[in-house]
Amino acid sequence: MVVFNQKASNGCTKSSSPSTNISKTINLDQGDPTLFEPYWRKMGDKCTMVISASDSMSYFSDAGNLCWFLEPKLSDSIKNLHREIGNAKSNSRHIVVGTGSTQLYQAALYALSSSPDRTHPISVVSAAPYYSQYPEETDYLRSGLYKWAGDAYTFDKEEDGNTNYIEVVNSPSNPDGSIREAVVKRTGGKLIHDLAYYWPQYTPITCPADHDIMLFTFSKCTGHAGSRIGWALVKDTEVAKKMIKFIELNSIGVSKESQLRAAMILGTLSDNSYRNFNSNKPELNSIGVSKESQLRAEMILGKLSDNSYQNLNSNKPELNSMCVSKESQLRAAMILGKLSDNSYQNLNSNKPDNFFEYSQCLLAERWKKLREVVKRNQLLILPDYPLEYCNFTGKFTQSHPAFAWLQCKEEDVDCEKLIKAHKMMVRGGVRFGAEKKYVRVSMLSSEGVFNLFLQRLSAIKGNFN
Amino acid sequence: MVVFNQKASNGCTKSSSPSTNISKTINLDQGDPTLFEPYWRKMGDKCTMVISASDSMSYFSDAGNLCWFLEPKLSDSIKNLHREIGNAKSNSRHIVVGTGSTQLYQAALYALSSSPDRTHPISVVSAAPYYSQYPEETDYLRSGLYKWAGDAYTFDKEEDGNTNYIEVVNSPSNPDGSIREAVVKRTGGKLIHDLAYYWPQYTPITCPADHDIMLFTFSKCTGHAGSRIGWALVKDTEVAKKMIKFIELNSIGVSKESQLRAAMILGTLSDNSYRNFNSNKPELNSIGVSKESQLRAEMILGKLSDNSYQNLNSNKPELNSMCVSKESQLRAAMILGKLSDNSYQNLNSNKPDNFFEYSQCLLAERWKKLREVVKRNQLLILPDYPLEYCNFTGKFTQSHPAFAWLQCKEEDVDCEKLIKAHKMMVRGGVRFGAEKKYVRVSMLSSEGVFNLFLQRLSAIKGNFN
Repeated sequence: MVVFNQKASNGCTKSSSPSTNISKTINLDQGDPTLFEPYWRKMGDKCTMVISASDSMSYFSDAGNLCWFLEPKLSDSIKNLHREIGNAKSNSRHIVVGTGSTQLYQAALYALSSSPDRTHPISVVSAAPYYSQYPEETDYLRSGLYKWAGDAYTFDKEEDGNTNYIEVVNSPSNPDGSIREAVVKRTGGKLIHDLAYYWPQYTPITCPADHDIMLFTFSKCTGHAGSRIGWALVKDTEVAKKMIKFIELNSIGVSKESQLRAAMILGTLSDNSYRNFNSNKPELNSIGVSKESQLRAEMILGKLSDNSYQNLNSNKPELNSMCVSKESQLRAAMILGKLSDNSYQNLNSNKPDNFFEYSQCLLAERWKKLREVVKRNQLLILPDYPLEYCNFTGKFTQSHPAFAWLQCKEEDVDCEKLIKAHKMMVRGGVRFGAEKKYVRVSMLSSEGVFNLFLQRLSAIKGNFN
Repeated sequence: MVVFNQKASNGCTKSSSPSTNISKTINLDQGDPTLFEPYWRKMGDKCTMVISASDSMSYFSDAGNLCWFLEPKLSDSIKNLHREIGNAKSNSRHIVVGTGSTQLYQAALYALSSSPDRTHPISVVSAAPYYSQYPEETDYLRSGLYKWAGDAYTFDKEEDGNTNYIEVVNSPSNPDGSIREAVVKRTGGKLIHDLAYYWPQYTPITCPADHDIMLFTFSKCTGHAGSRIGWALVKDTEVAKKMIKFIELNSIGVSKESQLRAAMILGTLSDNSYRNFNSNKPELNSIGVSKESQLRAEMILGKLSDNSYQNLNSNKPELNSMCVSKESQLRAAMILGKLSDNSYQNLNSNKPDNFFEYSQCLLAERWKKLREVVKRNQLLILPDYPLEYCNFTGKFTQSHPAFAWLQCKEEDVDCEKLIKAHKMMVRGGVRFGAEKKYVRVSMLSSEGVFNLFLQRLSAIKGNFN
C-alpha cells in the first residue's frame, strides 16, 4: 500500500515520466512502482488484453460464489501464483478481491469489528514504525466500530474490561523492510496480515504464510498500481462474508477490466516460473561462486531448455534433452561471472527474463548502489537484513525492500527537511510513529529518478563533511 | 446505483445469463443493466479496448490535475457527452472519478461533513421512497461525521441548535422514477444530486442540471456496471479536494483500465450523437404520425447523411449534401411506420443504431408491455409519468424508468411476498421507506428474464380474480 497527499497530487513530478531536469524536485514519497515498467514493455503483446464493448457488463462475475464479484480467472491465477511462489497458503481459503489492498484493509477492519452489540470502537494497533497510512485509513470516517490506537509495542488499553483489539502485522514492513510477527499477543486479539511486500524480489520467501486474513496487492507484486487490484486470503467464512459485504456497500464490487488484466498478467508469472526454471540446477546452490556469477549462470543455463535456445539450435534437437554436467555449470558460472552487465543485457535483449528474477536483480542492484553511497556518507545509516534461505529461488539472499528506511546519525536532525532541501520529496519518520531522524525513500522509481536520488544523496554528504 | 444483498450473492440466478427454466426464481431485485448488452455486441470491434502489459502502471493519471487519478481521456469524454446530451452543465466543474457512484456518494458525505470542529454527526436525509441503499451506505461504519436521518419530508431535527443537514436528491428517483427537487429547503442544508438515471432512455431531458454536486454512473448510462465507474461534477474546489481525499484514503484512485474503457465507450456516444442525427429533420417533431413511425423514419433518414449511405451511394456523391424535403420525410415516415419490427431490424442489421435511440425504444417497448399486463391485472398499479419535451430528442416523451414501482391496490397485501411466491425476486417497499404494498422491479434485465417476468405477473392476476 502507498500514500498520496494533497501536496503530491498538486503538481508533484509525475513518477512515471519524470523529468530528469537537475533543478526539479524528485518524488520519492510514494512507492509508485514504475521501475518494473521496462520489463512489461519488453513482454510486448504477450500480456496484451483485448476487451470488446459487450464483455463483462454485468455487476456479477460469479453469482454462485460467496465473492460474487470475483472473476474466476483471477481467482485461479492468484491460487496458482501462491502455489508457485510458496509465499502463502491459498487452498481452502476464501479469496476476496478489492480495489487495491487499501480497500481490503478497511473491509477487514469492518469484518472484525461490526457486531450489533458493539458499544465502543475496537482498538487498532501496529508495531512502530508502522505504515504511515494506517492511522488515517482507520480514523478518517471517525467510525464507531474501530479506532486507531497507535504503536502495538505500547498498547495496554483495557477499557471497561474489554480486551479486544486488532493488530495489523505488516511483513515485510513498510517502511523498514523488517520481517514482523504479532507483538501484543493477548487473548481477544484479532490479526490482519498485510503481506503486500512478501514477494521474492523484496525478501527471501522463507515459508508459506498461513494466517487468518492475509492481504496482497497487484501493485507491489508486478508493479501494476494503476489497476487498483488487491486480494485477501481469508480462513473464516463469516469474516469473508463481512468483507464482501463491506465491498458491496463501499463500491458494489471491483472493476472487471482490472481483474481480467490482473488474471492474465499474474497467470503469465506462474506459466513462466522461476521454480521450474531452477529445477534442473540444484548444484549451483552450494558452489563457492559469487552470487552475481550464480545468477548470471543460472539465467544463461536456463535458456538451455527454453524456446530461444530451441530456435538457436533448431538443427540440433539432441541438445534439448541433455543433462548439463556439474563441471560445465561451474565453468559457465565462472566465465559468465566475468561478463560485464552490458554484454549480458545485449545477450538477453531478445527474450524477457522471468519477472521475479528480473525484479530481484534490479532491486539488488539498486540496494547495492544505495549502500555504496550511504557507506561513503558519514551522516546516514541503512538497516541491515539477515541472509536467509529463499524457498523460491533456492538460494540464500538478503531483503531488498521497496523502501529505504534511512536514519540520520545525528539525533537532532530533521532528516525529511534535510533531504527535502536537496530537492527530494520523501516521507519523514514521524508519520510512521518513529523519530524525525528517519525518512522513508521509495526504491521503486524509474531509473532516471533513482539515479538523480543517488546523485543528490551523495551531495548531502558533501555538505556535512 | 443498485444494491446487492447476501441472499442475492449466494446463488441467485445470474442476470447476465439467466436460465429461462420456468421453475427457477428470476432475479429482478438488482438493476443489473444487461438489456443493453445486445447493442454493444452489435457494435463489434468499434469500442474494443486493447491494453498492453506496460500501459497505465503508475498510480498517477494526471499529476498536474487536482484529481490526479482521473484519466484525461475520460474527463474529455464526460464533458463532451454532457454537452451533447444537455443533461448537466459540466464546464467549469471539477470532475471527480469514483469506483461507481456508490463510492462517490460516500466521498460527498465525507466532503460535506469532515471538519475538525464537528462534534455531532450531520443528518443525512432523502425524500421517501428513497434509494434503499442510502441508509446502509451512510451508516455501515457508524461514522461520527454523518448519520442517516430518514425521510426528508418528516425531517425536523435541530439538535443543539445545529440545523445543518445533507439532503440527497435522487432524480429521476430510484425506485419510483419521479423527478425530484430538494424538499427540506432550510438554511444550513447541503445537497447531493444523484442523477444516475438522468439520461434520455429513462426520462425526457428537460434542462441541463446545474447543482453543487452531481453524481453520474457509467452503469446506468451505457449498461457497463462491471466497470465500476462513476463521476461527480463538483462546483466548489474545496469540496472536490475533500472528495478526492476520500478516494485516496478509500482506494488510492480508480481502476485505469475501467477509466480508459469508459472513455472510449462514452466517447463513441458523443461521436455518433442523436442530436446531430436529428439536426436535419426538425419537421418530424410536429407531424401527426405515430411515435413509432417517427422513430423508424428518423432512423432510416439518419442514414442519408452517414457512412453506410455513402458506401451505398459511392457513385453518387451529389446525394450527400442534399436537403431532404418535408414531403419526402413525411412520406418516408408513413411508409416506414408500416414496416414490421422484424423487417426493420433486418434492414438495420448491418449498422448499430444510436445508443440512446436504441435504449429509449427498448425501454419504451418494455414499459408498454408491462402497462398492458398491469392494465389487465386488477390488483396492481403503476405510476403515470407526464409527457414532457425532451431537449435531446426534440420530442414530447414520457419517462421509462429503470425500475417499475408496482403498488398493490389492496392495503394489507405484502406485495414482495406475493410476487416472490411467483418466483420473482423483487425489493419490497419498506426498504425504500415506503409501505409494504409497494415493490421495486428491475426493467433492465435480459430479454428472457423480462419475458418471464411479464408471464409470471400475468399469472398473479389469475390468482386473485
